[in-house]
Amino acid sequence: MALQTKQSTRAPTRVVVVGGGFGGLAAARALASARSPELEIVLIDRRNHHLFQPLLYQVAMAGLSPADISMPIRSILAGYPGVSVRLGEVRDLDLDRRIVDSTTGAVHYDYLVLACGATHSYFGHDAWEEHAPGLKTLEQATEIRRRVLTAFELAELEDDRERRRELLTFVVVGGGPTGVELAGALGELSRHTLARDFARVEPASTRVILIEGGPRILAGFDPELSRSAARSLERLGVTIWTDTRVTDIDRHGVRAGNEFVRARTVLWAAGVHASALNKTLGLPLDADGRVAVSPDLSIAGHREVFVIGDQALFVDDNGTVPGLAPAALQQGRAAAANILADLRGHARAPFSYFDKGSMATIGRASAVVETKAFKLDGFIAWLAWCFVHILFLVGFRSRLLVFLQWIWSYVRYRRGARLITTREWKLDAGAATLSPDPHQPDTERPAAP
Amino acid sequence: MALQTKQSTRAPTRVVVVGGGFGGLAAARALASARSPELEIVLIDRRNHHLFQPLLYQVAMAGLSPADISMPIRSILAGYPGVSVRLGEVRDLDLDRRIVDSTTGAVHYDYLVLACGATHSYFGHDAWEEHAPGLKTLEQATEIRRRVLTAFELAELEDDRERRRELLTFVVVGGGPTGVELAGALGELSRHTLARDFARVEPASTRVILIEGGPRILAGFDPELSRSAARSLERLGVTIWTDTRVTDIDRHGVRAGNEFVRARTVLWAAGVHASALNKTLGLPLDADGRVAVSPDLSIAGHREVFVIGDQALFVDDNGTVPGLAPAALQQGRAAAANILADLRGHARAPFSYFDKGSMATIGRASAVVETKAFKLDGFIAWLAWCFVHILFLVGFRSRLLVFLQWIWSYVRYRRGARLITTREWKLDAGAATLSPDPHQPDTERPAAP
Repeated sequence: MALQTKQSTRAPTRVVVVGGGFGGLAAARALASARSPELEIVLIDRRNHHLFQPLLYQVAMAGLSPADISMPIRSILAGYPGVSVRLGEVRDLDLDRRIVDSTTGAVHYDYLVLACGATHSYFGHDAWEEHAPGLKTLEQATEIRRRVLTAFELAELEDDRERRRELLTFVVVGGGPTGVELAGALGELSRHTLARDFARVEPASTRVILIEGGPRILAGFDPELSRSAARSLERLGVTIWTDTRVTDIDRHGVRAGNEFVRARTVLWAAGVHASALNKTLGLPLDADGRVAVSPDLSIAGHREVFVIGDQALFVDDNGTVPGLAPAALQQGRAAAANILADLRGHARAPFSYFDKGSMATIGRASAVVETKAFKLDGFIAWLAWCFVHILFLVGFRSRLLVFLQWIWSYVRYRRGARLITTREWKLDAGAATLSPDPHQPDTERPAAP
Repeated sequence: MALQTKQSTRAPTRVVVVGGGFGGLAAARALASARSPELEIVLIDRRNHHLFQPLLYQVAMAGLSPADISMPIRSILAGYPGVSVRLGEVRDLDLDRRIVDSTTGAVHYDYLVLACGATHSYFGHDAWEEHAPGLKTLEQATEIRRRVLTAFELAELEDDRERRRELLTFVVVGGGPTGVELAGALGELSRHTLARDFARVEPASTRVILIEGGPRILAGFDPELSRSAARSLERLGVTIWTDTRVTDIDRHGVRAGNEFVRARTVLWAAGVHASALNKTLGLPLDADGRVAVSPDLSIAGHREVFVIGDQALFVDDNGTVPGLAPAALQQGRAAAANILADLRGHARAPFSYFDKGSMATIGRASAVVETKAFKLDGFIAWLAWCFVHILFLVGFRSRLLVFLQWIWSYVRYRRGARLITTREWKLDAGAATLSPDPHQPDTERPAAP
């Protein structure tokens, strides 16, 4: 795996795209669609698959399988000329020599598009991650699924009232769209799906608490929609604590304000931080780790380096562009257009964000939708949510069938993917087994004699 | 979680079934169907799901998702009266006091049905497991999927011819039905599914070697069917080495006879060993770890303890009952019938195995089927295989849809579940990343400068 460099002056222009999310894929596709023989596009990702993140909470809540919302990046880009895909994690950049350094070799670029997204931020409390996993990857989703389902299994076996209560208390930290979707799905899972399978787990004994630091959930939405979402959540049995700051999380629960809530399962949906790769750029970053980009989406001092999506801080007259899939998509296309403009000797165009609005679902048949033109809530908003997600997923070829199937089972309160799988593949050795502490599946607990 | 004991002489009879595979589920269902108010049935399994093992190789080969072939045991038994399900791993038995000791507490029984199945056997070479995983659990299947797909990704990046060849050499050890199915699916995956996505991986450069210690593959079948299966495999590019003993396996490959085959991916389908729980019975075990059972399926000295399925050695005039799903099912029902006979004061009936024949698929549209009445091979056998598996899966409710969908995508050479997921859920920490050695995903390799 030798360094790939430009050998002659007639060599094609190489664009390296790092990240196969919405932004990176959009950039690679837009570049390839120009069908320029002068252009060579290399997409690097540490995963072999693109993840449809808006539905990731459904994997965590046992409604969908990992394969339902992901697709090999190779397959997505197979029909595009001039694109090659490299599996590898980018660890460092050499902006002067224009080299991307990955775990599977170094690659030279003429243009670089960074679209690595964001990860969770525990505001300096990294130890909380162990007890309160976030939701960004398939592995995290199946880990959350394992914890939630295991908590119900252990509650079914537990004779002690207090311990059963602790097992059946679920805390979601963060009242943004992800937190709301997780809390709603948890409420529904315990009220409907699992109630008939567990003899001793009653809906009334299950608590789902959604903790938000600010004065209302879904702060990015209109206050009226926040109230509507709160009412929908409460109907699903979710308790909402606003204006409440989490000050500690350990394996027994959450300290929120002056209270300690005993809960075996805590999920983190509170903060995100841009990819650590930003630190290699030598530029100042904002509190969320994002790097400020110029109107053409390139960074200061390096016109050949573009940063897009959750990794970038883009501010225009309307404020900061939010970390949403449509924004990443638009930026990916805009960065590609500016690279093509350079090659054709045209002037670059400044990026302009077209706000398509935002949406969040609450449980089975309710949602909130807000655009500049209109606001929706309840069932009609949920239908709009379905419509938009089906439109999106059509690009996933036969996934449409999966989605329709899922909608159907969802409406009927079934959960098709209720699997507790562990992190360990050598199960036969007896290394990974069930333990009463779902956080520590590998520890053994002496059984009662 | 106190010990559950019989409190009075009028307490119901408790049957504890250990294992939620084909045998255990059949026993629990048959007992529950008697609808006796005197009967309390407890099923214990260390996993929350039943696994449809005959299709597990499809998960390993990226054709199906884990959730497609598994179902929560609770859901399967939800409609059956008097059955409770406990998640827990049984570690020990006290046959005198009639207590099952599990990781989630101890349970007293009046009757015990052991249906824990078998695991892989490396014939004393346990170190081989690291380099040549077997295929018994969902975790193992996704681990095999990860290794196979990662090998292709790394081969795509590899400039060195010899190393690429090592990455694209796949060895399957064991020429029984599982080995044949894995080898066939591997041949197909590389020849058809992946060929169009990888620019540098050519079908001709991929080797799949199936190693069998005996004189022919599918030794349990008629020699003519063995030959037919071998021809089908060869058409898919699989090389078959018969009469070849594997003497060593390490991370670089397999020593077979006098030759060392450099291969990064080795799969083990050679031998199984009955559940280690058999060691707690205090009875002699055969070479495969199985315990001999009486004609009524109980063990010597303990009429109240039944052992069924892969865990049991049952020999009648026709020979040894094979370790197949139909045999486990029949034994589960027979053990239940004998327990019910006791309760009704009837005599127990000896178990009689009804041999429905056996089958194995080879790739996309070929199979071999052998019953007492007839032998089939090729496409017609494959249709028979589909028919039988659809019949089986109908019990899985809406899984029929999944199966049909899979058949369709299978025929069209698509693979819907081509995901490389890792064992580690905290990916953001950068702990688990791609490494050129697919066996060691956590090691870092310095990139070329």
